[in-house]
Amino acid sequence: MEFTASQIASFIDGKIIGDENALITGVSPIESGETGHLSFIAQDRFTHYLDSSKCSVIIVSEDLLTKDYYNPTIISVKDAYLSFQVLMNLYQEMQGRKEGIENGSSIHDTAIIGDKVYIGAFTYVSEKAKIGEGSQIYPQVYIGKGVKIGKNCKIDSGARIYDYCIVGDNCVIHSNTVIGGDGFGFQPTQEGFKKIPQLGNVIIEDDVEIGSNCSIDRATIGSTVIGKGTKIDNLIQIAHNVKIGKNNVIAAQAGIAGSTTIGDWNQIGGQVGIVGHIKIGNQVKIQAQSGVNSSVNDRETLYGSPAISYNDYLRNYIHFRNFTEIVNRINNLENNSKDKTNE
Amino acid sequence: MEFTASQIASFIDGKIIGDENALITGVSPIESGETGHLSFIAQDRFTHYLDSSKCSVIIVSEDLLTKDYYNPTIISVKDAYLSFQVLMNLYQEMQGRKEGIENGSSIHDTAIIGDKVYIGAFTYVSEKAKIGEGSQIYPQVYIGKGVKIGKNCKIDSGARIYDYCIVGDNCVIHSNTVIGGDGFGFQPTQEGFKKIPQLGNVIIEDDVEIGSNCSIDRATIGSTVIGKGTKIDNLIQIAHNVKIGKNNVIAAQAGIAGSTTIGDWNQIGGQVGIVGHIKIGNQVKIQAQSGVNSSVNDRETLYGSPAISYNDYLRNYIHFRNFTEIVNRINNLENNSKDKTNE
Amino acid sequence: MEFTASQIASFIDGKIIGDENALITGVSPIESGETGHLSFIAQDRFTHYLDSSKCSVIIVSEDLLTKDYYNPTIISVKDAYLSFQVLMNLYQEMQGRKEGIENGSSIHDTAIIGDKVYIGAFTYVSEKAKIGEGSQIYPQVYIGKGVKIGKNCKIDSGARIYDYCIVGDNCVIHSNTVIGGDGFGFQPTQEGFKKIPQLGNVIIEDDVEIGSNCSIDRATIGSTVIGKGTKIDNLIQIAHNVKIGKNNVIAAQAGIAGSTTIGDWNQIGGQVGIVGHIKIGNQVKIQAQSGVNSSVNDRETLYGSPAISYNDYLRNYIHFRNFTEIVNRINNLENNSKDKTNE
Repeated sequence: MEFTASQIASFIDGKIIGDENALITGVSPIESGETGHLSFIAQDRFTHYLDSSKCSVIIVSEDLLTKDYYNPTIISVKDAYLSFQVLMNLYQEMQGRKEGIENGSSIHDTAIIGDKVYIGAFTYVSEKAKIGEGSQIYPQVYIGKGVKIGKNCKIDSGARIYDYCIVGDNCVIHSNTVIGGDGFGFQPTQEGFKKIPQLGNVIIEDDVEIGSNCSIDRATIGSTVIGKGTKIDNLIQIAHNVKIGKNNVIAAQAGIAGSTTIGDWNQIGGQVGIVGHIKIGNQVKIQAQSGVNSSVNDRETLYGSPAISYNDYLRNYIHFRNFTEIVNRINNLENNSKDKTNE
Repeated sequence: MEFTASQIASFIDGKIIGDENALITGVSPIESGETGHLSFIAQDRFTHYLDSSKCSVIIVSEDLLTKDYYNPTIISVKDAYLSFQVLMNLYQEMQGRKEGIENGSSIHDTAIIGDKVYIGAFTYVSEKAKIGEGSQIYPQVYIGKGVKIGKNCKIDSGARIYDYCIVGDNCVIHSNTVIGGDGFGFQPTQEGFKKIPQLGNVIIEDDVEIGSNCSIDRATIGSTVIGKGTKIDNLIQIAHNVKIGKNNVIAAQAGIAGSTTIGDWNQIGGQVGIVGHIKIGNQVKIQAQSGVNSSVNDRETLYGSPAISYNDYLRNYIHFRNFTEIVNRINNLENNSKDKTNE
Repeated sequence: MEFTASQIASFIDGKIIGDENALITGVSPIESGETGHLSFIAQDRFTHYLDSSKCSVIIVSEDLLTKDYYNPTIISVKDAYLSFQVLMNLYQEMQGRKEGIENGSSIHDTAIIGDKVYIGAFTYVSEKAKIGEGSQIYPQVYIGKGVKIGKNCKIDSGARIYDYCIVGDNCVIHSNTVIGGDGFGFQPTQEGFKKIPQLGNVIIEDDVEIGSNCSIDRATIGSTVIGKGTKIDNLIQIAHNVKIGKNNVIAAQAGIAGSTTIGDWNQIGGQVGIVGHIKIGNQVKIQAQSGVNSSVNDRETLYGSPAISYNDYLRNYIHFRNFTEIVNRINNLENNSKDKTNE
């Protein structure tokens, strides 16, 4: 990364105040700026960094500027946050995509590999698997029998995608995530638990991103489904036959038990647990660490274990915090009552 | 998968109503049947699908049938659920086992590989490791020094089994699970934490299944033990020196801290935490998300964090949900009491 | 492992009572001693094993010895626990380090590999990565572009370290942990969530140990930091831009959300969740399963979800356990009050 202030200004249509040849070689958060780095200020409470930051170039929302000269070179724009995003996206794209099949990968003869695909060393592609155009499969990935991966996906190192699972277009699956492991299904018998074959698959629709170290189990029969545009953080458990709709956001370490159905545009907090065989509507918010054990209507906000309405939980929890005082009040009432009786 | 209705009927000793040549190429849950697929109906509440399902063939418990003709081809049996299980197991077996050593695996000269073993590409087998007859080690697995794996095991892609760990017969270990990582043991000193060497191992007895992305740590000295027939879901933490008995079922994201002992036939819910150095008896049920911080007797059912009796927790939680109302009642009592005093 | 009692006594400067040629080939916890094994007794409550243990050699704190002869060979020392630690460390060191580049690894031409480094088969080292002197990279590891790993590190099989992350000296990273996956950052739009590029890195300082199956995400810009000497257990989530100080201990399955700052010498329990954008001081203790949702001062001890003072939580939880009884007392008070009113 090496750009001048004037190159950056041209990308985002900004005005330069200061040295247009100032060189940047990296990016810093404004709180910990470094010489030679670029940063941005989009909020009033950060404007004091305009004078004190070590950054060489700062993109600033124009209405936050009050002087004609600052120590760092300033690039003045309408909305510094948006401009910075534009820039980061540009930079990301400049990195380019990887392409080509590396030595040391193992690709079955019957696998179908699209144009401009990258397959890293030590990646294993099983029979009849299909990798769509422009997808990047990093090293050490496992792709099972008959797996279909769409276009422009990125599958990071160490991900495992088991037999017959389907991944749509533009999906990102991070390292060491396992798609299509057996669902957890056993029948109790006198002698022990007998495995119920798990013969379904996992379907991941377009534009889904799944973090690292997640486990998404295949359906017993039919499919476990992750709907279009849903984003899943790290270390998340999705059990067999779960159906998740579109544009959900699920934070790290959440777990969803078998056969539960989840609608669209829900926000599920970190470490949330959702029991099996229930139905979550749309636009539901579930607070971190909650335990949801019954179906949920649209637009509810939940908290607690078992989860209840967010406001109720908070209100009741305040009483819980004062519980000792509350018990003291009961003690007093009882003492008063006895006194009266004894009068 | 391609079978006719009559082939399927012969496997499960069923009677055909309809087209005995009806062809099936897949399996669907009855709620989302597809043309050309097989499904089953074993409960009254699903019988409305007998007319509306797109499935080509449906296995039905005979006492649920009321007509002589249905749209799909029907295979009538005594218990449709059991017959379907039989069929799925048959199908699973038909898939066959993998066998042979793939190019690109790395097997130490001193390792002992049994008959009919499968070892996938990019799998690493260290010195003096032993793989029992008929076991399947998928690609990209790591097998440490002196590890012993029994007969007919399946070790999925990316599993790691560290030095001197022992796995019994008929075990399944899913992808990216780590067996025998160092236990979390450090001694505090003035300057920082000093690592306590973790020199024990992990012993996994026969018929154990362990899901994906689990961490089962080696003992400091001695062994961490997973008893015969115990089934462990995904993303589970088992710390050093834990001893788990036979036929337990442990749901996803549960964690068991160091040196705790667990008996037989227990059911441990998802996201449960169990502290170290305690003893859990037999046939105990621990509700999801509970936190167990003291020893538990046989046949108890627990809930909450810290966990108490399930019924007590539920009863008390109902009061918690009404806490605001309860405090209002106390307010009223106090006001009444004051009124009386002022009279 | 094969030592005589006299060899062991010489390592730890102990006195032998019994057969100085007694041979040991392994180590047992005293509760489950085995013939031919070594163990130790450092506490009075274990002295009954002096006569009953099957161990061939036992190291014992001298003040616990009361007789001239015991069944096993005894090595008498000042502090048996410390001597045993010394011995285990010695044994660990005797195992030696691995060295050399194994066949079947893939190392980019521009990578810089220090002296005495071990790189296992199927490990992938990307362009311009740097591996410091004496570090051991086990098989099947992924090292991204420009990654820097210090001296004397151990990176276990299946760990993934993404582009530009930095690891200090003497660090241990266990199997299947992912360092530098993208942070979970998306902007909501009408059509769905748009990815915010994650262009920062992860910096891991010296003497850090990270367990298996952890996810430590790269910063959006700047760095996610794990401070010197901090020890992290298994299955832990560290989100983007988190800064963790020195000598913290974080137990399994804990999760820390984005941009939170954590000081030094804190103890964070298992399955704890910490929300984003808060500040935890120093020497704080957070009880297992707690949910921390606001900043915490030095030396506090917390419990509950949301977390409050440990003592308050425990006291209030006792009332919660008695909630039914407490409500009965309110019922009685109300009945009494009505009685009085009706009088």
